[in-house]
Amino acid sequence: MSMNTSGRVFRFSTWGESHGPALGAIVDGCPPGLAISEEAIQPFLDARKPGQNKFTTQRREPDQVKILSGVFEGQTTGTPISLMIENTDQRSKDYSDVARAYRPGHADYTYDAKYGFRDYRGGGRSSARETAARVAAGAVARLVIPEVTICGYVSEIGGDAIDPTAFDPSEITRNPFFCPDAAAAKRWEDLVGKARKEGSSLGAVVECVATGVPAGWGAPLYAKLDADLAAAIMSINAVKGVEIGDGFAAARLRGEDNADPMRPGENAPEFLANHAGGIAGGISTGQPVVVRTAFKPTSSILIPQPTVTREGEATELATKGRHDPCVGIRGVPVVEAMMALVLADQKMLHRAQCG
Amino acid sequence: MSMNTSGRVFRFSTWGESHGPALGAIVDGCPPGLAISEEAIQPFLDARKPGQNKFTTQRREPDQVKILSGVFEGQTTGTPISLMIENTDQRSKDYSDVARAYRPGHADYTYDAKYGFRDYRGGGRSSARETAARVAAGAVARLVIPEVTICGYVSEIGGDAIDPTAFDPSEITRNPFFCPDAAAAKRWEDLVGKARKEGSSLGAVVECVATGVPAGWGAPLYAKLDADLAAAIMSINAVKGVEIGDGFAAARLRGEDNADPMRPGENAPEFLANHAGGIAGGISTGQPVVVRTAFKPTSSILIPQPTVTREGEATELATKGRHDPCVGIRGVPVVEAMMALVLADQKMLHRAQCG
Amino acid sequence: MSMNTSGRVFRFSTWGESHGPALGAIVDGCPPGLAISEEAIQPFLDARKPGQNKFTTQRREPDQVKILSGVFEGQTTGTPISLMIENTDQRSKDYSDVARAYRPGHADYTYDAKYGFRDYRGGGRSSARETAARVAAGAVARLVIPEVTICGYVSEIGGDAIDPTAFDPSEITRNPFFCPDAAAAKRWEDLVGKARKEGSSLGAVVECVATGVPAGWGAPLYAKLDADLAAAIMSINAVKGVEIGDGFAAARLRGEDNADPMRPGENAPEFLANHAGGIAGGISTGQPVVVRTAFKPTSSILIPQPTVTREGEATELATKGRHDPCVGIRGVPVVEAMMALVLADQKMLHRAQCG
Amino acid sequence: MSMNTSGRVFRFSTWGESHGPALGAIVDGCPPGLAISEEAIQPFLDARKPGQNKFTTQRREPDQVKILSGVFEGQTTGTPISLMIENTDQRSKDYSDVARAYRPGHADYTYDAKYGFRDYRGGGRSSARETAARVAAGAVARLVIPEVTICGYVSEIGGDAIDPTAFDPSEITRNPFFCPDAAAAKRWEDLVGKARKEGSSLGAVVECVATGVPAGWGAPLYAKLDADLAAAIMSINAVKGVEIGDGFAAARLRGEDNADPMRPGENAPEFLANHAGGIAGGISTGQPVVVRTAFKPTSSILIPQPTVTREGEATELATKGRHDPCVGIRGVPVVEAMMALVLADQKMLHRAQCG
Repeated sequence: MSMNTSGRVFRFSTWGESHGPALGAIVDGCPPGLAISEEAIQPFLDARKPGQNKFTTQRREPDQVKILSGVFEGQTTGTPISLMIENTDQRSKDYSDVARAYRPGHADYTYDAKYGFRDYRGGGRSSARETAARVAAGAVARLVIPEVTICGYVSEIGGDAIDPTAFDPSEITRNPFFCPDAAAAKRWEDLVGKARKEGSSLGAVVECVATGVPAGWGAPLYAKLDADLAAAIMSINAVKGVEIGDGFAAARLRGEDNADPMRPGENAPEFLANHAGGIAGGISTGQPVVVRTAFKPTSSILIPQPTVTREGEATELATKGRHDPCVGIRGVPVVEAMMALVLADQKMLHRAQCG
Repeated sequence: MSMNTSGRVFRFSTWGESHGPALGAIVDGCPPGLAISEEAIQPFLDARKPGQNKFTTQRREPDQVKILSGVFEGQTTGTPISLMIENTDQRSKDYSDVARAYRPGHADYTYDAKYGFRDYRGGGRSSARETAARVAAGAVARLVIPEVTICGYVSEIGGDAIDPTAFDPSEITRNPFFCPDAAAAKRWEDLVGKARKEGSSLGAVVECVATGVPAGWGAPLYAKLDADLAAAIMSINAVKGVEIGDGFAAARLRGEDNADPMRPGENAPEFLANHAGGIAGGISTGQPVVVRTAFKPTSSILIPQPTVTREGEATELATKGRHDPCVGIRGVPVVEAMMALVLADQKMLHRAQCG
Repeated sequence: MSMNTSGRVFRFSTWGESHGPALGAIVDGCPPGLAISEEAIQPFLDARKPGQNKFTTQRREPDQVKILSGVFEGQTTGTPISLMIENTDQRSKDYSDVARAYRPGHADYTYDAKYGFRDYRGGGRSSARETAARVAAGAVARLVIPEVTICGYVSEIGGDAIDPTAFDPSEITRNPFFCPDAAAAKRWEDLVGKARKEGSSLGAVVECVATGVPAGWGAPLYAKLDADLAAAIMSINAVKGVEIGDGFAAARLRGEDNADPMRPGENAPEFLANHAGGIAGGISTGQPVVVRTAFKPTSSILIPQPTVTREGEATELATKGRHDPCVGIRGVPVVEAMMALVLADQKMLHRAQCG
Repeated sequence: MSMNTSGRVFRFSTWGESHGPALGAIVDGCPPGLAISEEAIQPFLDARKPGQNKFTTQRREPDQVKILSGVFEGQTTGTPISLMIENTDQRSKDYSDVARAYRPGHADYTYDAKYGFRDYRGGGRSSARETAARVAAGAVARLVIPEVTICGYVSEIGGDAIDPTAFDPSEITRNPFFCPDAAAAKRWEDLVGKARKEGSSLGAVVECVATGVPAGWGAPLYAKLDADLAAAIMSINAVKGVEIGDGFAAARLRGEDNADPMRPGENAPEFLANHAGGIAGGISTGQPVVVRTAFKPTSSILIPQPTVTREGEATELATKGRHDPCVGIRGVPVVEAMMALVLADQKMLHRAQCG
């Protein structure tokens, strides 16, 4: 991965800041001849879109995607696909607070330390708004891997986890939390609502499962499928942890309990367990690829925090205005997009080497 | 990262299999004029070396490093540094078992699924032996970042964790577990010894802390410092999870508890906490960079597991011979090496862009 | 270089087709804090702009550049700079001819052979219009190398060369040919005018000299400065040859005549000749970097040529409409841009490794 | 291309200096299952080997290649192939001259300017000896493109060109000059012999033709096939110019004379000419790919040249010892190797994107 680009063969780059005129993505290396349209990309952006309910930020952005290149007569041409999303709700807000002092937990201080300078409006480049461009690119990536189904959901908010036995995939789109457990979703209404009212925020765990990935994708050693997923997902704002399969729980198992024994299957070996999360030696096993992601609680909270100004003086800062009480919720479409982008690249890399 | 290469400006590639004549690393982009010698690299390899006690594999390899290029009169020249380690203990073992059937939890099946073919001797390219080359490259990386101290240790084996209040860094090199807590090390002797005798294996958690990293290293968005670390560490054999700072625990905190407030310091802001693990917005904050890694229990166990042959028939397989009862232990020098490699690259990338 | 991206540290990508809504470039890795504006980029685009006189295509494009990201309060922020140029003169032309048959010398057949499909409107992605995006990116690159002056000019059209002894740099912008020799420019009016009237086209040689490049830029072996320049310039439409310094003429010299002897200079050795074109061993010598480029005659001519249809039937095709009688002329700002882009990247790469 | 690595999917890196213990190449991304052996690679190295006749350097190196990894039971495994060539004839020569002063035309001064330091023994990393590693890697690349035949030859030495009508491919291996024209080879014996005796050197032009390349290889815009070839070939020591097809001669043609008209062929269009050298829009046309390369006369000559010492004092330097009077001759196997490496990478990249 280079700075604002990811992928080897199927590559994407994003650009844009929270409060610039627009943001976007360039998808390069997409196979030709795939049916594509703005209408087909839009639903993925809509799923990530802010302002849809009281549990996410009230910034209202239509997040309308435009295809500027790489498509002819409804098909990809093999040349770069430029996707643009205009920023419309750049409320002319007073940024003097943020310009003057560093918001704890944000990238304000580190951007300044790195560049000696920063676009402080709405977090600039480090704003979660950039993830809209990833979601648009991810929608293109999905076209490359029609054999794969990617399903993400929130499995835990503020320490309150779903009941795995109550898992119902059809529930995921029925509540504002991408929650597959109706009872948990009900509880989270109170939990998240309360945090919002208190001006606080909550962390979350997002799980994402890709089914249909055939055995053989992934390129040892430094382009392992799990290494790619780890990088892609850790690059998402507010993510602090990534697990493949059993993850940290595997560190507490004994070898015989963590084994994924095999038996003969119809066309391929059948696995009796999936502790590995569908990846062994960096290569997909044919089982579902399972990733778990830890989102920290949003750093933007109304509760004032001690901090320092650019001049090095002590002050306090509380976030004003519109923010997500639980940024992990809107992380679901982003995790899905990153997974699609990694899988598309790995599929094509596999095809390059192994025909 | 490309297939067997990692890094952007400070780049390294590794090559070699478990049972070939040798394995090695090429370090490219190393600054010129750094004092270097085989003697200075060797101690890092010695720390990773197998066969040093009964808690690691009994394969005996001297792991003697040779510098084949890139060094003149004791200094790096700026040209590629070729490091080679000869394999000496390739015991002429009977591999017919492994050649015939897939060891569960290993990369046997996935390599075959990908390449249609595999070097089954000792795991071939997917053997943990390859990490010797990483450790050698990591020793070179350390020369690039003299301001940084990297300290790794095992914090948990088989679910038995150290007592953080008993943390003593000087303890780490005094026991065979890289354990900073003398009491835990004592307990682990029994724990690991018992698992070894039973032919089983245990998982482990490795923590690694880099102090001295100045604020400003890391390149948003897809070359974030945490994304790089996640990829680098997830690429290590047997790793199933990576956390930065509080990791998954942060997902259970509220915003105000996860904040890292600041106050004026001598030359830079001082942080009152380090939940973020030294990274915000993908850029180092100047605080210690903290990474936690989950190692699964070694898949090679003496307890037979159901599996299938290459021809798709059911069989059982138990590992014979020499293996690590807890592969996470020898993971410590490897995690340290990967961290050094990432930091060296990010330091140089930062210098390129920000002077 | 990847498909639509070039550079290692200072990277740029371009996107867009001749007849899409817009085209553009993303510049990634630009140092922060450089003063930049649309007004500062525009003159470079104006120099390349079509329709300015009868010796270039009559397509009329304002080629107005917009900065969409990466700039705050008139300075680069270190994040991706998105540059967009809208296509306005997409004359609703009848493309049925070109859609049906392959224009000889164009990329029509090869795009179809590669992708099974092509955007035939105005050459699609293979149109020289894409070079507008390169010129915009090149204008940003120049900011990174203020110590360097890049001067390109046409030294030969249709076999009629300038007189080197009549070289006058101030002449270059006084005629429509970027010609440094007033007498040659006068002759070329007739030469190019005649070719245009006859519906034919002429080739050209473009020379480009970068002064102020310090000794030490360039990264052996596969990122040599000359290798980078060769790739960058050969990637321009219609280019068929690249020379560094004496180029092919050096192949006819004896060693002692091709030597660039040195004598002591004020701060560095002084060279008594520059056959090498400012590059030795892939690294700049401190002398002017000299590149010569061969542009073939435009393939779009009014004289019908035998060709085949997509269905494989024989036909004849002549280009209708607006085209450059000598595409090399407008190649000058593009060669300059590519040189700036390569030098900016190499400067930053050098800084990364050698501080 | 990064510093010592080239390629995107089929990648190779080289390492090693003229007077180190060994040099080598790592080939990464090679498809699995290709039959390979040291014996199959050796002939390519033998063709490049020095000391075979009086027209090349008298350094005697067996250039015996060893495969250290990536091959199992005579087949490539898909993992990195490490190729090593030991240096044996490192004559313990007096290097005090070269250590003290810069040889004009060599990379001595530029390496010092870049790195502040250099391995002066035999040119160090900038020695043409490094090309042995390229030739070894190129032999592997050929396995990836069995449909392609690559034929290189010298077409001109010291300004004395072959007669194209006397072209006889079988002649190429019958003389020490890779010359396809028996009469020219005869003349060159005198020409090169005389230059050698006079302590001078001669430049040369090498042509290389790849037949069998199907239409569709090459990736616009910055990974065009011709851009890749230009970079790969310009990265060879002593190369100062690259042409595709008619090259600079095309700049002197009119559009109608430079056209490559088409007519219906059996399975694909048939071209009536090949001015384009088999590449249009950066993509192969299916015609032979034709590259011409200018090699400067060897800079190492016995005739003293004015130069400066590291301390900046005036001196004179003449090369002593063993050198090629015409380095272009042994350039032929190197140009062939670079062409094979580029084509293998482009074939695999094409397969990745276009299936």
